[in-house]
Amino acid sequence: MDDADTSEIDALFVGNMLAGQLSGQNHLGALVADFAGLRGIEAVTVEAANASGGAAVRQAVLAVKSGLVQTALVVGVEKMTDQTGSPVVSAMASGLDADYEAVHGQTLAGTGALLMRRYMYEFGVDVADFAGFSVNAHANGAENPLAMFQNRLKAERFTMAPPVAEPVSLFDAAPAGDGAAAVIITSSERAADMVPNPVEIAGSAMATDTIGLHDRRDLMVLAAAAKSAQKAMQAAGVTPEDIDLFELHDSFTVMAALSLEASGFAERGEGWKLARDGEIGRNGRIPISTMGGLKARGNPMGATGVYQVVEVAQQLRGQAGACQVPDARIGMAQNIGGSGATAVTHILRR
Amino acid sequence: MDDADTSEIDALFVGNMLAGQLSGQNHLGALVADFAGLRGIEAVTVEAANASGGAAVRQAVLAVKSGLVQTALVVGVEKMTDQTGSPVVSAMASGLDADYEAVHGQTLAGTGALLMRRYMYEFGVDVADFAGFSVNAHANGAENPLAMFQNRLKAERFTMAPPVAEPVSLFDAAPAGDGAAAVIITSSERAADMVPNPVEIAGSAMATDTIGLHDRRDLMVLAAAAKSAQKAMQAAGVTPEDIDLFELHDSFTVMAALSLEASGFAERGEGWKLARDGEIGRNGRIPISTMGGLKARGNPMGATGVYQVVEVAQQLRGQAGACQVPDARIGMAQNIGGSGATAVTHILRR
Repeated sequence: MDDADTSEIDALFVGNMLAGQLSGQNHLGALVADFAGLRGIEAVTVEAANASGGAAVRQAVLAVKSGLVQTALVVGVEKMTDQTGSPVVSAMASGLDADYEAVHGQTLAGTGALLMRRYMYEFGVDVADFAGFSVNAHANGAENPLAMFQNRLKAERFTMAPPVAEPVSLFDAAPAGDGAAAVIITSSERAADMVPNPVEIAGSAMATDTIGLHDRRDLMVLAAAAKSAQKAMQAAGVTPEDIDLFELHDSFTVMAALSLEASGFAERGEGWKLARDGEIGRNGRIPISTMGGLKARGNPMGATGVYQVVEVAQQLRGQAGACQVPDARIGMAQNIGGSGATAVTHILRR
Repeated sequence: MDDADTSEIDALFVGNMLAGQLSGQNHLGALVADFAGLRGIEAVTVEAANASGGAAVRQAVLAVKSGLVQTALVVGVEKMTDQTGSPVVSAMASGLDADYEAVHGQTLAGTGALLMRRYMYEFGVDVADFAGFSVNAHANGAENPLAMFQNRLKAERFTMAPPVAEPVSLFDAAPAGDGAAAVIITSSERAADMVPNPVEIAGSAMATDTIGLHDRRDLMVLAAAAKSAQKAMQAAGVTPEDIDLFELHDSFTVMAALSLEASGFAERGEGWKLARDGEIGRNGRIPISTMGGLKARGNPMGATGVYQVVEVAQQLRGQAGACQVPDARIGMAQNIGGSGATAVTHILRR
């Protein structure tokens, strides 16, 4: 709100997944509106599991586009440290199918493990082949003063990490934690009066898939990610070749590989090669996790999708500091919920 | 979906408050989309405590108005019987201020009690003066085969009810329970092709107030309800005199009185007189709770606001059976969250 010269915010969309379960506090719309000095405005919480933040951005886009809302504030927020241990793991698993997955003890990391095991089996790769994703994320996080982990990771250490849910290890899995991010969305006409360097939302799309892994036609295709990426690119009139950076949902290394494939940056079963070949780095073919990604910046569930959009905007505005991708003009953010049941893709352009 | 001839639903908005807390199931957007045969569409959960249903309708209105969504399905759903007793009471209290109210043991019924006590003190009325609200709701619920309570209530029994949180008694408080309702929202052009008798959403508005009662400037003014009602009426170009029925948020009898006052149907401190004088009945000046209201139809939290809109639509389409308000042309629905921190008002016209 300090960054954008605006006194006219008339709607608030809060992206949050777990405040009810972990803090006993629902109704964040009214609460955040009041605490942010916006008492009285239209305000609501948007939830789509880990994709809540991206979904909140999407609602703000719809609201502004409707003309019934002039300027919207999007806040992604998650406070996960009010509780520790199994309540947090259980709460995170509420983004999966409660009746078919969570009730049997399945967790978010457990679904990551199923996907990673299948990926290794189908495409003949090893655990070590995923190392590049985490090495890149940590290298970028080390340059981001707001990242949760600011340490670099050596590739040879990757396979030595303690397991979380085999084959997912501590170095595959993004860390949950507290966090909040915010972005202001308004019409193109108003934006020019509010900031000297507005960023255009050129494409916005959201899609779903089965909530349970067992109902997927093909476990190795993130159908919601593919659909939302295609729709967003179509709306923006761009192809993967036009995208200068991609803030994807690297909750697990295998999700990074699957997101790259679903979004058209790699063929089926070949997303991991982009990491192996250094193509995901700041000067590579498609830079990802440029501020650390979920893996190193941190993954505060419902806040993550808003972080992604903020980070893409910072890149396009040349405000990414040591993490800056040279001459970034078009960036993409993709937020994924559950084990892929929801995906929200935004394409931003300067 | 059977009622409207449509194969083109492209977005789903789920109004829900408590599935994460009571059923360990978040991510209802993807889940309901898949289970309703709409796998793949854009889908999200909208939460604003007890106003979640109305807020979901509001998001659908914004989405369709944006032109980025053609036809939206709104589903309000709450399943409260997965648990019983204090977990349910605690979960419902998550719509209040967790740090200042719920942590001290305050409950939803407790805030109703504070408001009712203050109302009695400021305006010099007795518990018995609220009887008319419940008598009317039960009389209407008795004619609604879908109502939770289909028994009539005699005014003389009202003050004999066991207390819930004094002065709120069992006959002041709406019953929580399981429930679901759905409505389809599309553009005016498409609506005519989908049903023979579409209902127009002539006004839609949402507003907030402080989440905690202690921060209100005036406890006897539901500021969010007033603001959203004014905006919705302005958009529809109507005044309270034009409204033929009003599905208000009678979670407690005092909330019915305060809603009538905030929405311009009565002066400050005089809403209860409409009940006393029989003006809220089917043939009165402003019929309310025409299908039983929260008190007799039931109050399934996040579903309630969608029930309200469905019931208004049924009234305007002449499909309300024995509950039919004669020649209803314009109806209003108002859904309130927490102790009044969120309010969503819709005005419908045939």
